[in-house]
Amino acid sequence: MLEKVDLKETISHDKYSELSKKLKLKLSSLQQPIKQKGLPVVVLFEGWGAAGKGSLISKLILNFDPRGFKVYSIIEPTELEKREPVLWRYWTKIPKRGQMAVFDRSWYFDVYSEEKDITDADSMRRMDGINTFERQLTDDGYLVIKFFIHIGQKGQKERFENLCRDKNTAWRVTELDWQRNHHYDKYYRIFDKMLEYTDTENAPWHIISGTDKKLAAIKVYKTVADRVTAALKAKENASIIITDSNIDPGKYNFAVLPKLADVPLDKKLSADVYKKELKEKQHTLSVLHGKIYRKKVPVVIAYEGWDAAGKGGNIRRVAKALDPRGYEVVPIAAPTPDEKARQYLWRFWTNLQHDGHVTIFDRTWYGRVMVERIEGFCGEEEWHRAYKEINEFERELYDWGAVIIKFWLQIDKDEQFKRFRTRQNTPSKRWKITDEDWRNREKWDQYETCVNEMIKYTSTDFAPWHIIESQDKKYARVKTLDIIIDTIRNIFN
Amino acid sequence: MLEKVDLKETISHDKYSELSKKLKLKLSSLQQPIKQKGLPVVVLFEGWGAAGKGSLISKLILNFDPRGFKVYSIIEPTELEKREPVLWRYWTKIPKRGQMAVFDRSWYFDVYSEEKDITDADSMRRMDGINTFERQLTDDGYLVIKFFIHIGQKGQKERFENLCRDKNTAWRVTELDWQRNHHYDKYYRIFDKMLEYTDTENAPWHIISGTDKKLAAIKVYKTVADRVTAALKAKENASIIITDSNIDPGKYNFAVLPKLADVPLDKKLSADVYKKELKEKQHTLSVLHGKIYRKKVPVVIAYEGWDAAGKGGNIRRVAKALDPRGYEVVPIAAPTPDEKARQYLWRFWTNLQHDGHVTIFDRTWYGRVMVERIEGFCGEEEWHRAYKEINEFERELYDWGAVIIKFWLQIDKDEQFKRFRTRQNTPSKRWKITDEDWRNREKWDQYETCVNEMIKYTSTDFAPWHIIESQDKKYARVKTLDIIIDTIRNIFN
Repeated sequence: MLEKVDLKETISHDKYSELSKKLKLKLSSLQQPIKQKGLPVVVLFEGWGAAGKGSLISKLILNFDPRGFKVYSIIEPTELEKREPVLWRYWTKIPKRGQMAVFDRSWYFDVYSEEKDITDADSMRRMDGINTFERQLTDDGYLVIKFFIHIGQKGQKERFENLCRDKNTAWRVTELDWQRNHHYDKYYRIFDKMLEYTDTENAPWHIISGTDKKLAAIKVYKTVADRVTAALKAKENASIIITDSNIDPGKYNFAVLPKLADVPLDKKLSADVYKKELKEKQHTLSVLHGKIYRKKVPVVIAYEGWDAAGKGGNIRRVAKALDPRGYEVVPIAAPTPDEKARQYLWRFWTNLQHDGHVTIFDRTWYGRVMVERIEGFCGEEEWHRAYKEINEFERELYDWGAVIIKFWLQIDKDEQFKRFRTRQNTPSKRWKITDEDWRNREKWDQYETCVNEMIKYTSTDFAPWHIIESQDKKYARVKTLDIIIDTIRNIFN
Repeated sequence: MLEKVDLKETISHDKYSELSKKLKLKLSSLQQPIKQKGLPVVVLFEGWGAAGKGSLISKLILNFDPRGFKVYSIIEPTELEKREPVLWRYWTKIPKRGQMAVFDRSWYFDVYSEEKDITDADSMRRMDGINTFERQLTDDGYLVIKFFIHIGQKGQKERFENLCRDKNTAWRVTELDWQRNHHYDKYYRIFDKMLEYTDTENAPWHIISGTDKKLAAIKVYKTVADRVTAALKAKENASIIITDSNIDPGKYNFAVLPKLADVPLDKKLSADVYKKELKEKQHTLSVLHGKIYRKKVPVVIAYEGWDAAGKGGNIRRVAKALDPRGYEVVPIAAPTPDEKARQYLWRFWTNLQHDGHVTIFDRTWYGRVMVERIEGFCGEEEWHRAYKEINEFERELYDWGAVIIKFWLQIDKDEQFKRFRTRQNTPSKRWKITDEDWRNREKWDQYETCVNEMIKYTSTDFAPWHIIESQDKKYARVKTLDIIIDTIRNIFN
């Protein structure tokens, strides 16, 4: 793609003055509509060293009110960032609706940065991950504008030399920069391949010559203005969304689990057996937790289940076996305004612990295909899409090295009624039961359909569901411990 | 203080069973009141290595619902954390009202941790900073419970040896642990001094023997239960707060600035001079910015001023001189629910950039003694206290190495009226003016009193106010650039 760029094109000073004045006014006028219509905008700049990314960003953002954007400079990940999934540090930075995030270098950093030891297969995988990431954003209504600022080998060398002449700027030119200049052809091919592979319809590249800085600025202004305008217009017409009635959970291997109605709920443990087994298994898990910590394995445990199925008590029995320095329970309630203002997976990304730690989610991202689906908090095409998005999310965690364990705690409707009544009649437990719980109960059948569908579409081999018979809480607690222990042990074999 | 602890005391198994059962129930029953009454609780554990902090925390938190607390393990600060003020990583972690934060090691880490090169004076300064931090929290209604778990030299050695026998736990005992055990007496003195110096009325230490783990658990349970109960009771009686009518801005050197009414507003710049000077000064600042970045100097610029005084345009002229990779404009609007739920300085702490960066606050923490005071968003004793809290906050930044520059943009009432009218009559600017602006205008005199008082009480030598005559925006822009340049140059001399 780079070969199509004319590196010799220039613009006259007068023409620049005229155009830049007009375009700056246009850009300034777009910020209010962006905010009012709640358009989230991501603008990223990639390109050769000394191509002029910094000053282009500087010029671009001066057209906007600081309340509306944030600039992120991407450098080598910190030690802690390295202990998260590769995309973690980008996911956590996505803007709210109505806001703009400008990236000076971006997720593409990880594709080409590590000349050191990144294999071709790795690089391809990362680009696939990036395409998925960008698609999840644009599917959610994000506008993603990607710039690559291109300059020639000779031009770059001259700029490096100029920078090196002044001690205030010399530090900017690194050994790596020179190395890349010397092996310009090699990097040309790397960049070209990257641009081609990630030039998608929903998030296309804008490759711009950095030779004439004025012309580059004009092109950046114009591209941003045009794409924002188009996105705002598209948002106006958004009522005519064509609902995709096909569900496509992605190309994964799915396990077939029984339907909820077919799960026998007669399993029980006596108090004696329970006490003994619980203690034993907690001890085993406790030892495994040390190993996880030392080997830096991330573990993600997801709890879903009927209201009053015993999630809290179950989690507590697992937590008891863990060192508090190495786990976190993340309770998921209704999203906060900050969470609602972003793609729905954002709040789960931001809550991931780093590797070697156990993250226990008490309710999860599956809310999308249960409560949000049933209550209409998201549209039909959104929850249809969610199965695939969730599988992709979990796959990203798996590729990071995570052990993913998902539990559905199953009870029947009578048992739930009994437990609701007990809560209502026990003063110390009364706060646990709300009107909403009773309302949800009325929708039992709807939920059951959703859960069966959810399990069908998201029981991948890397993130399987486990249905836990929770009619007897003691049995359920021992069973979850068993599954956690087995799954973790497996990865050490 | 350590000498008062009986390291030999034990508890029988039966007594433990009986008491722990009772206390656990008590603790469980406290979580709802904590939430309902909005009590923010901080529990921290310090102590000797292998004293049993981890398992005490583990036991303590099992009594609470994970939705109500968060555990933080404090280890060596990361490279990025080292580039923030020492207390930054703790301030950012304070809980919301109704929530609990449990710290496994805490801000005391920085007092004793660095056997390496921390001087006595440094250590004292940090303890002063800690006392201030804890006082600011408790003044704001936080409950701060501090545990120090104490064991003897021989007991510690035995525990280390036990841990080392098993490869799953051996890694926990570090070189430093052994070193501390060998020089137990020296550390005893260090800890004792620290405990004494930071044992305040509002945040006293609870020193507990770790010899008998069961007894230690009982004491931790009981202390937490008692102190939470007392704090909840105190909250009930909170209506009888005695308003402190004295304002004490702290012991600092204050500069005397003219009252707003005495500031002549006739200063002007011609368009030609302005254009030339602006360009020159932006260039100078741009070069200085590179120096700041390389020398890792943090710069904090605070903008306050009348509505329509020209803050936005002024900030933009400063920003234009800065590399976007090295500055951030933080616009301060009404606090979000998350911000309102914490001590008011929290949101400013969390928005600090690390050293080498410029943080520009568009409106600031001074909202406390202006809009919050006038609109009654905080009580009288709260804004009385704020002058001192703010000076302490800025002093903490100064001690970190920050250059602090505070601007008040001054215009007169007629000029504001003109600007409001212009905004109202210009479609592209209309969004900038709201009913609130007109309402604030009616309170001009009240605001003037507040601003004069604010400048009087917070013009310290390390964080001085500058009144910027902003009747002529051009003059104002050049003057702020001048002041920023001079102040930054000074620190390089």
